[in-house]
Amino acid sequence: MPNSSRPTVVIFSQGDEVITGATVDTNAAFLADHCRTLGFDIVRHITVADELVDMVSVMQEIDALADICLCTGGLGPTQDDLTTEAFSKAFNVPLELDNKALIMMQDYFGKLAVDMPAVNRKQAFLPNGATRIDNHWGTAAGFISKGKQCRFYFMPGVPYEMKNMMRAVVLDDLRLKFNVDKTQLVTLRTMGMGESAIQQEIDLLSIPKDVRISFRAGLPENELKLVFPSTYAKKTMQACVDQVQNVLKGSVFAVDGLGDSIENLADCVHQLMQQKNETLSVVETLSQGDVSRQCNAHWLKKSLVFPRVSDIMPPSDLTETSINEDVACQLAKKQHTNNDSSLTLVQLYDQIGDDKVVYIAVVGNQLCKSISKTLMGRLHRQQIVASATALNLLRKYLLEH
Amino acid sequence: MPNSSRPTVVIFSQGDEVITGATVDTNAAFLADHCRTLGFDIVRHITVADELVDMVSVMQEIDALADICLCTGGLGPTQDDLTTEAFSKAFNVPLELDNKALIMMQDYFGKLAVDMPAVNRKQAFLPNGATRIDNHWGTAAGFISKGKQCRFYFMPGVPYEMKNMMRAVVLDDLRLKFNVDKTQLVTLRTMGMGESAIQQEIDLLSIPKDVRISFRAGLPENELKLVFPSTYAKKTMQACVDQVQNVLKGSVFAVDGLGDSIENLADCVHQLMQQKNETLSVVETLSQGDVSRQCNAHWLKKSLVFPRVSDIMPPSDLTETSINEDVACQLAKKQHTNNDSSLTLVQLYDQIGDDKVVYIAVVGNQLCKSISKTLMGRLHRQQIVASATALNLLRKYLLEH
Repeated sequence: MPNSSRPTVVIFSQGDEVITGATVDTNAAFLADHCRTLGFDIVRHITVADELVDMVSVMQEIDALADICLCTGGLGPTQDDLTTEAFSKAFNVPLELDNKALIMMQDYFGKLAVDMPAVNRKQAFLPNGATRIDNHWGTAAGFISKGKQCRFYFMPGVPYEMKNMMRAVVLDDLRLKFNVDKTQLVTLRTMGMGESAIQQEIDLLSIPKDVRISFRAGLPENELKLVFPSTYAKKTMQACVDQVQNVLKGSVFAVDGLGDSIENLADCVHQLMQQKNETLSVVETLSQGDVSRQCNAHWLKKSLVFPRVSDIMPPSDLTETSINEDVACQLAKKQHTNNDSSLTLVQLYDQIGDDKVVYIAVVGNQLCKSISKTLMGRLHRQQIVASATALNLLRKYLLEH
Repeated sequence: MPNSSRPTVVIFSQGDEVITGATVDTNAAFLADHCRTLGFDIVRHITVADELVDMVSVMQEIDALADICLCTGGLGPTQDDLTTEAFSKAFNVPLELDNKALIMMQDYFGKLAVDMPAVNRKQAFLPNGATRIDNHWGTAAGFISKGKQCRFYFMPGVPYEMKNMMRAVVLDDLRLKFNVDKTQLVTLRTMGMGESAIQQEIDLLSIPKDVRISFRAGLPENELKLVFPSTYAKKTMQACVDQVQNVLKGSVFAVDGLGDSIENLADCVHQLMQQKNETLSVVETLSQGDVSRQCNAHWLKKSLVFPRVSDIMPPSDLTETSINEDVACQLAKKQHTNNDSSLTLVQLYDQIGDDKVVYIAVVGNQLCKSISKTLMGRLHRQQIVASATALNLLRKYLLEH
């Protein structure tokens, strides 16, 4: 349940391009992420179309629901930009010409050596009593206004202008007016273990009740998030994370929020390759270049892509009828003698009905580490998992050798 | 104002990762775009956190507000997956074990040679009277259930599973149960021409007023959408599309909605390669396997990836100091003589300050076609454009020869 001492926030996006799906709403994620960092409880994201009646009633709902509303869009000069008018109607506040806003707009057009079009004048009208947010990056001034109880922050929908206003004005105002209580987020990035398997392991631990746990299932990586109260010392958090890491064994490849930060599996491999000063050659089959694409040009020497295993491994080369981890290791060792890299990774696969089994081997100094994995679903999905499995094997090899 | 004869839709997203901004909600845009195409009025996007009380009250609000609710997320096996429970509470419908859903999940885990974890069992409980949506792509079954008046469609939050369910079941159900506006959408997929350049060309044409035009800028492909009234005959639409294609010249690689359907540039190349019965070998540098990854295993024979041009093209091989299209053509011809494919594509690049210039050549029967392109921005962006430019050159070669 939301902690009642924390300010509540609604992220409010406007505009037909968002509601119709023509644009993905990246503003909402940006604003929410900032609010989370401040320790606020985000209770809703709401998007409405450019319909005045709808906008008025949604603003009234938000006013009753939250302490803070961060609103983007609808401040432009055209007839479908109705945000300011909607606020005026929702809370019965008259609009008044803001001279500074008008002058800034005229200056903006002046710099472009263009007369300000008449339609833009409406952008200089703000609700009585509003605090203007200067727009140094475009035409539409933003503003801060209170409804009955909620503090509304209005910003343009253009991400660049919105982000600049957040950084220049809004974040400071939020810190000044609201109780900022920083919870502490630690993210464990995992690979090779399903969401439910993780959940089962976690259930067996005694994680303190005030630590909130959430998951984020991705393909092929899963994230486990631990949100600690601000009162937790780093040492206590570390002990808790250690406990979790212990039961998830080798599947955790990165821990964010306790000092380090690693974005994904490829970044993790990149760091290890650099630390150990290794270089790599690759033979890819099923993933068709998707492993190579994720390697860094500093240490990937070369890669051979053969979509069909038979093109790298003629049937006559196979003493047994089928491919297996041993065959992958043998090929990796053979390739490695011709390579000028310190490591060689080989990926082979076999078709079994609709599914595939991928066999991966990493070799360096004659030591070989291998893995096999059954892949289901669409080809594209199989390829993503096949390349992630290869990178993960490389990561484990680097940790062990 | 919304046309009152059109069904109204709420897009409802769930989950902490969306509300906290850890994930950008691309599902909402995908679903909204489909609803717009069907002619529905999208009245809200709403996102809530994994809080049962909140979810219950939002579902009741949506029920009073719209005819249709497309809901994603919260169907997983973990403790923060509360969607089904929330629906049950909101409309006082008991949950019951759905045996087919349970069996499908057990089969899914069986294929992975893993026992189904006990926590997953809860995913097989659906509201009494619900229509199950089979999940052939993961564990969580979706379902369709009516609230008091709104028809709710529940799908997993994993985009891949959600999209598959939309295509396999939900779209058909929407068409069956609701009044679908028969506007006709034609999408022109373009590559190599910017949004404003396209806009300028279109502005010079006399497109009928009742044809709605919209853009969707992507990287590296841009879409131009023409929405025709239901009354337009195919011939009239074709004439209008021809007019547009004429001014956009070779940049249109596919037209969807007049019979054919091509998803993207790679699909377009795939069709041409098959029609012409060609096979391909590739040498990639900058894009590091991203071209190969998008080729089909039926005609891609092999690919060599050298992240550093100097590894494939030692400085001593260069008679001039710099790389250019001629050098790319020469290398392509040289490689081609050793290949058993009918075509060879070579990609080289040069660093010029922060930017890069990529040189691409395609050769077959000694005929060489080449292109160069300056790439800006982050490395990842440069790589995406570099591989798309290569595929687009291959497409043009195939059309001409």
